[in-house]
Amino acid sequence: MPRKIKTTIVALSTPRGVGAISIIRLSGPKSLELAQKLTRNTKTFSPNTVQYARVWIAERFLDEIMLTYFRAPHSYTGEDVIEISCHGSLYIVELIIDLCVKFGAVPAKPGEFTQRAFLNGKIDLLRAESIADLIASKTQSAHRESSRQLLGDGAECFQRLKKKIIQLISTLELELDFSDQEITFAPHEQIETEIHSLINDIYVLMKTYSYGKIVRTGLFTPIVGPPNSGKSSLFNALLHEERVIVSPIPGTTRDTIEESIQKDGYQFRLVDTAGLHNTDETIESAGISRSLKTIQLADLLLFVIDARACLAEFQEIIPAKISNMIIIINKSDITDPFTISKLQNELSRYKTIIVSAKERVGIRELTTLMVDYVKAQQPSEEDFILTQKRHYIALKKMCKFLKNAKASSKRLITSEMIVIDLRLALSCLDELLGKTTNDDILNNIFQNFCIGK
Amino acid sequence: MPRKIKTTIVALSTPRGVGAISIIRLSGPKSLELAQKLTRNTKTFSPNTVQYARVWIAERFLDEIMLTYFRAPHSYTGEDVIEISCHGSLYIVELIIDLCVKFGAVPAKPGEFTQRAFLNGKIDLLRAESIADLIASKTQSAHRESSRQLLGDGAECFQRLKKKIIQLISTLELELDFSDQEITFAPHEQIETEIHSLINDIYVLMKTYSYGKIVRTGLFTPIVGPPNSGKSSLFNALLHEERVIVSPIPGTTRDTIEESIQKDGYQFRLVDTAGLHNTDETIESAGISRSLKTIQLADLLLFVIDARACLAEFQEIIPAKISNMIIIINKSDITDPFTISKLQNELSRYKTIIVSAKERVGIRELTTLMVDYVKAQQPSEEDFILTQKRHYIALKKMCKFLKNAKASSKRLITSEMIVIDLRLALSCLDELLGKTTNDDILNNIFQNFCIGK
Repeated sequence: MPRKIKTTIVALSTPRGVGAISIIRLSGPKSLELAQKLTRNTKTFSPNTVQYARVWIAERFLDEIMLTYFRAPHSYTGEDVIEISCHGSLYIVELIIDLCVKFGAVPAKPGEFTQRAFLNGKIDLLRAESIADLIASKTQSAHRESSRQLLGDGAECFQRLKKKIIQLISTLELELDFSDQEITFAPHEQIETEIHSLINDIYVLMKTYSYGKIVRTGLFTPIVGPPNSGKSSLFNALLHEERVIVSPIPGTTRDTIEESIQKDGYQFRLVDTAGLHNTDETIESAGISRSLKTIQLADLLLFVIDARACLAEFQEIIPAKISNMIIIINKSDITDPFTISKLQNELSRYKTIIVSAKERVGIRELTTLMVDYVKAQQPSEEDFILTQKRHYIALKKMCKFLKNAKASSKRLITSEMIVIDLRLALSCLDELLGKTTNDDILNNIFQNFCIGK
Repeated sequence: MPRKIKTTIVALSTPRGVGAISIIRLSGPKSLELAQKLTRNTKTFSPNTVQYARVWIAERFLDEIMLTYFRAPHSYTGEDVIEISCHGSLYIVELIIDLCVKFGAVPAKPGEFTQRAFLNGKIDLLRAESIADLIASKTQSAHRESSRQLLGDGAECFQRLKKKIIQLISTLELELDFSDQEITFAPHEQIETEIHSLINDIYVLMKTYSYGKIVRTGLFTPIVGPPNSGKSSLFNALLHEERVIVSPIPGTTRDTIEESIQKDGYQFRLVDTAGLHNTDETIESAGISRSLKTIQLADLLLFVIDARACLAEFQEIIPAKISNMIIIINKSDITDPFTISKLQNELSRYKTIIVSAKERVGIRELTTLMVDYVKAQQPSEEDFILTQKRHYIALKKMCKFLKNAKASSKRLITSEMIVIDLRLALSCLDELLGKTTNDDILNNIFQNFCIGK
């Protein structure tokens, strides 16, 4: 259950670190009182106005701050909010937060400010979710989808579905009300067709999720291939050619080398892997089994071979799944064109490209090919893209109920049964839209936020 | 030379990273116009008031922001300032800064906002310097000294010196004016005594610098000793016992292990070093020669020995300089009390302490001893502490001129000569106070700031 809303929460809202300024946020009924205590000020602060003040700790001067008061309900959370802009020293930030806690504030949990905004009806759940995505967005494509959701495209799309279901339910219920008069408002076939089209709409939406996911987290793009084919050289050449995304959060993976590049607004998470040997060789090596696992998880696979190799040498280890693979014929600088063209012919059923990672030839063409691959996955411009797993799961559950309803309709089962399933489908949508939510779901959503939001 | 003040500068003012919000600051004549362009707003913003707006990039929605306008001269820099509070995504921050630059802003150099504040007479140089220190402060002691300077204690202290010199100069010049009438306003001995007392005052102040330096940067505290005496165990025990200061800026030293702990408001920069052998052994080892160098630089030295060792084993490698050393008799858990007390007696001329790093016995007592050492260095509570090297150098230069003046006075040289030296001393003070500054000095001061301040 969300904390009793009587509390006043406090947190650092800007990134942790040293900078010119840091912002500490307070929200709750005691915000104003706390601000007065901090600054030893008895007068009240004017709303929405930035004011200069000094913070004292016991008798000691702590910092000069700029303070802004947002009066409830005209604030982000809908509660009284105080924003304190202090000097960007972690020491000062910690002392001010400690002081607030001493005066009665509670350290905020991740996303608690936004959670309160939701509970106070300031934003709907979809907007709340999009804010977490917006903050995490590193590329144009990720930003585009999260900002569309922030502007309400998602809500609109789900509301359309909701309207259709409600329409169906009303038709069927009207029929039930007049059932003793044997009036039929819509033939069963029509109901069935409409449910079918609804299911189709949801399928189209669900299909956008795989694209939504790669847009949100970047394409997982491992570089695999036989030993000495030049995987690490290609990895470095790609980093050299395109803009590297520096993750401000320290990487979690330490045993594989992963770096992200950005090209045309898409993020590719490149992973340099251990060499793949033929399967009859030592498969036990941890590095190789990791490589095999990596292949399975790949959104896009870069398979690197030495241009001087003959097909037989690596045919056994080329992954079976080829739709998301580009074969990179490397070392073009030290191989004669005839050999290369022969190899490329033999590989004609695959997507191939000739490069020299060492001489950095063909690298830009490769990244263009990579972008083309993502673009081919992209739904049409107007389509709303599903980026949240929670939405995907809710829609999947909804489909199940709609299929039941469709089956009932087909088997000419009474309208009551169809309505029950349609109502269940509706409740999935309401949950998705945050009309009905349980606390577990809410906590789960907001814990993915950073603290201070 | 500072950039022509006609420009409008822009920078991220909060730490780089992902967080709930980030603040971008604009300062200069075009700030308001830029804010209007960013938000596609033609109306002007009310000063000191926080307003909601949306930022657009071409036709694409970029972010929802809160915007505050500070009208010149009522702003930090004294110029028109716009603060943009956007979502804390590096992607969004970079795009907004790019947009500002596209519309005519210039990326700010480190400290340029504060430099403009100084050039526009909003703050004096001493306050400006203290802000950089305040931001960097990690401990109570560092914060205390920088905030005292921010509140003007430094300026006051230097102004007192200035007043005394001016008084001396006026007395001497008055004498010169009436020199044909052979009136003597103060006997040479009195002038000499006054200059002498002035020099003494400056010496007292200069002496606080060594304390000021350790307060500002922490005490460099290497742990040295013979191999296997338990240096790394002690290092870990200290980290375990006291609060570790997590530096938000990645460490620069990678070949020695350094961690900072905080105790009673003081920072100790602990360094784990390679073992010290007897000098006749392989001194060539890079690790050992590093340890020897480390000893020279130490503010406080922790010399660790095995309690079971006899004095002869390590006597040769105990550093000669002992005033800032604590000898740690380690492994008390596996040594009999008699052996320990014998060893401690033999080491009676040193400061010693008995611990067991492994069992974490005596560690708190050791840190208390370390704090006692710093406190013994601390000048009296009321004294202003010199923390800036620039101030130290200026005072040193000043002393040179005052000594010349004193010598002239002693040798009964004409007052003209004394006045010349006193005036030179005065100019050192004026430079320190920022009354007269050259651009090199200014640039040097402000480049130590972070960008965005």
